[in-house]
Amino acid sequence: MGGSNAEKVASLSATTSAGAGAGPRLIMDAELRSRAQRVIPGGMYGHQAVANLPPHYPQFFVEGKGARIRDANGVEYIDLMCSYGPMVLGHRNPVVEQAVRRQMRRADCLNGPTEHMVRLAELLTQNVPHADWALFCKNGTDATTLCVTIARAATKRRKVMVARGAYHGWAAWCNPNTNGITEEERSNILYYEYNDLDSVIGLLAEHGADLAAIVASPMRHDIKKDLLPVDPEFARRLRTICDQLGAALILDDVRCAMRVDLRGSWEPIGVRPDLSAWSKAIANGYPIACVLGSDRFRDAASSVYATGSFWFAAVPMVAALATIEEATRIDAIEMMRVAGQRLRDGLASQARSHGLAVTLSGTPQLPFMTFAGDGQLTKSYLWADECVKRGVYLHPFHNWFLSAAHTAEDISRALDATDDAFGVVVKQFGRD
Amino acid sequence: MGGSNAEKVASLSATTSAGAGAGPRLIMDAELRSRAQRVIPGGMYGHQAVANLPPHYPQFFVEGKGARIRDANGVEYIDLMCSYGPMVLGHRNPVVEQAVRRQMRRADCLNGPTEHMVRLAELLTQNVPHADWALFCKNGTDATTLCVTIARAATKRRKVMVARGAYHGWAAWCNPNTNGITEEERSNILYYEYNDLDSVIGLLAEHGADLAAIVASPMRHDIKKDLLPVDPEFARRLRTICDQLGAALILDDVRCAMRVDLRGSWEPIGVRPDLSAWSKAIANGYPIACVLGSDRFRDAASSVYATGSFWFAAVPMVAALATIEEATRIDAIEMMRVAGQRLRDGLASQARSHGLAVTLSGTPQLPFMTFAGDGQLTKSYLWADECVKRGVYLHPFHNWFLSAAHTAEDISRALDATDDAFGVVVKQFGRD
Repeated sequence: MGGSNAEKVASLSATTSAGAGAGPRLIMDAELRSRAQRVIPGGMYGHQAVANLPPHYPQFFVEGKGARIRDANGVEYIDLMCSYGPMVLGHRNPVVEQAVRRQMRRADCLNGPTEHMVRLAELLTQNVPHADWALFCKNGTDATTLCVTIARAATKRRKVMVARGAYHGWAAWCNPNTNGITEEERSNILYYEYNDLDSVIGLLAEHGADLAAIVASPMRHDIKKDLLPVDPEFARRLRTICDQLGAALILDDVRCAMRVDLRGSWEPIGVRPDLSAWSKAIANGYPIACVLGSDRFRDAASSVYATGSFWFAAVPMVAALATIEEATRIDAIEMMRVAGQRLRDGLASQARSHGLAVTLSGTPQLPFMTFAGDGQLTKSYLWADECVKRGVYLHPFHNWFLSAAHTAEDISRALDATDDAFGVVVKQFGRD
Repeated sequence: MGGSNAEKVASLSATTSAGAGAGPRLIMDAELRSRAQRVIPGGMYGHQAVANLPPHYPQFFVEGKGARIRDANGVEYIDLMCSYGPMVLGHRNPVVEQAVRRQMRRADCLNGPTEHMVRLAELLTQNVPHADWALFCKNGTDATTLCVTIARAATKRRKVMVARGAYHGWAAWCNPNTNGITEEERSNILYYEYNDLDSVIGLLAEHGADLAAIVASPMRHDIKKDLLPVDPEFARRLRTICDQLGAALILDDVRCAMRVDLRGSWEPIGVRPDLSAWSKAIANGYPIACVLGSDRFRDAASSVYATGSFWFAAVPMVAALATIEEATRIDAIEMMRVAGQRLRDGLASQARSHGLAVTLSGTPQLPFMTFAGDGQLTKSYLWADECVKRGVYLHPFHNWFLSAAHTAEDISRALDATDDAFGVVVKQFGRD
């Protein structure tokens, strides 16, 4: 990914102008997909499978640097998904990579942790007001599941409330797809509607005495919907209900942490959870997740068993220390806010000038856009596909992610592509 | 960890001769433990917590190279635990590290996998006769849980048989500690006795029609017990029962894979599972786990949802490719067998000459030793502690692990320490 930006633009245009769907630029990706079909069920699985994405989304990649990624066909993109969250400082951030390389010369996975585990727990409990202690694991699902397990161990109760449609991982208690999951594994999960206090209160009469926890995301960030900020009063009432019933308030900060507020994503509204789950961005792409908790839940956290062969490895902890320190030093959240606001303002203005009604939701750091009356996401799919064809990687039904590596020029170039993509939408569907 | 082996011996002796328990050599570890007590519940958790280990076990480490590790006090050990399995080629194996460093210059965690995911799935399905496809994840628990989920999705049944006392991870269905886990989450798990066919058959009358899977470890490797090889006839009968009932035979190869047989740990006895879970050693310490399955379960594998933010990252897949290729090239399993047999022969001979009755179990690559009539593990604790004091890191109640980095000289030096440790046991408890 060498060369000036001007050269990159030229190279990008040359590559993408070869046209869509056919031609040499799709060969590598197509060959890999065909080989994958033989040895991976469905050819790919999980949140990065492109089977449900528009036709021009590449499945395989080769390179990432800053805010740019390159797919297996050699096509470069401005990356507005940041690996679905992890790359908060941009791909291969030099500060993080240097810290990682230094640690790799000593050790990674040993018979116990290195000092970095203690330092990381100290840093997180210092930064995050609700946290008196930390537990580290690997997946966001590990962290959310561990929160629920600790809450049940502390309260000796069974019921856990989650918002209908919210994603908290693929474990049996929360998997959005119930294939292979028994009813019994879900029998203690209750569903409320996000921001709807009555839906919470309605469950309390029957289940309040057996309530172990209420799980909430910092905002509603369900797929295929506009993002919805939390109503601060709703969050405060959840806090009060949990206090009154002796249940745990669990904040699933896996997706938002490190983008909304380094102190935890509900700190700006002043609502402190008992337990919070962190992952994705805390180590700029290195695999780690974390549970933060208050003293009230410390004994319960000691009483449950959870472990993994790679949980105490040093490198991801070193990466997390470097990521958090660098994000603090450069004020990464403000940088993402500025870049994301520029993107949102640009999109809003472009949509207006094309005569298209759109809704921009989320925060500047985790933005999303939908088209009015586009329930089947037909316009979103076309628009996102046209963006991808023009070298901007974003998503038609999952919120996007900014990183601190997104420059004003990256956003300008992204907006050049989005403007053309709006033009294609108007051409096909007309003005609103 | 530079210097000749002779120098290392001298340095090691100098360090450890400072004496046990007290003195300056415990300061760093003690300080880290004290700081950890404040910010980590219990000071440490999971399988690497030393709270239940003898007093001289260090909790924190700084370095690993080949078969040697160094703790936070600067004391060096011959590592007979290999990070509880992962380090199959030894710490910081140059071939794996070079492949990793090369990949790190391009990318790790992106919006999709790199070609290495396909290559790794191709290599594994080529090496492992029962496997037609592969799914990758992060933890051993992810892999075993995914096997169970796929089996249930394929069969539309609920019941899963596991051997009583076997460890398959910390998920609700298998966690050995039930704090924080509801009865409902375990209500479809049935328990048989390892190698006891009658205990399996006894469950079939009531549950056979609802049987989704039987889960088995390649050998019984429960903590605090002698390891027990599988009775090949028992394994064959499990295979027949699963075939007759249309249930899945799941092999939990997380701990044994890459040490018993590169084709899967039941290939030597000719019993092929439908699904197998791999992790630990497949990438020499880099975080990855894997489910391998047969075509019969391919559609079910496509139908379940499982994912993680870091599951498709390139570096651990590159590490796995390098580890498997290098293990094949050098015949790592034979190297481990030779080193492990030397260790077992030496221990058996030492125990005899000290007049102590011991049982050596497991395989040379995953050996274990118990003392006769030592139900409370009193002798094991003393002996293991004396080994640790003499610079040999092994475990009093969990099987040990050899790596291809263990040289004849490493084993000789380890045996010098174990001989002295037997002497201390005799001094305290007398001859058998």
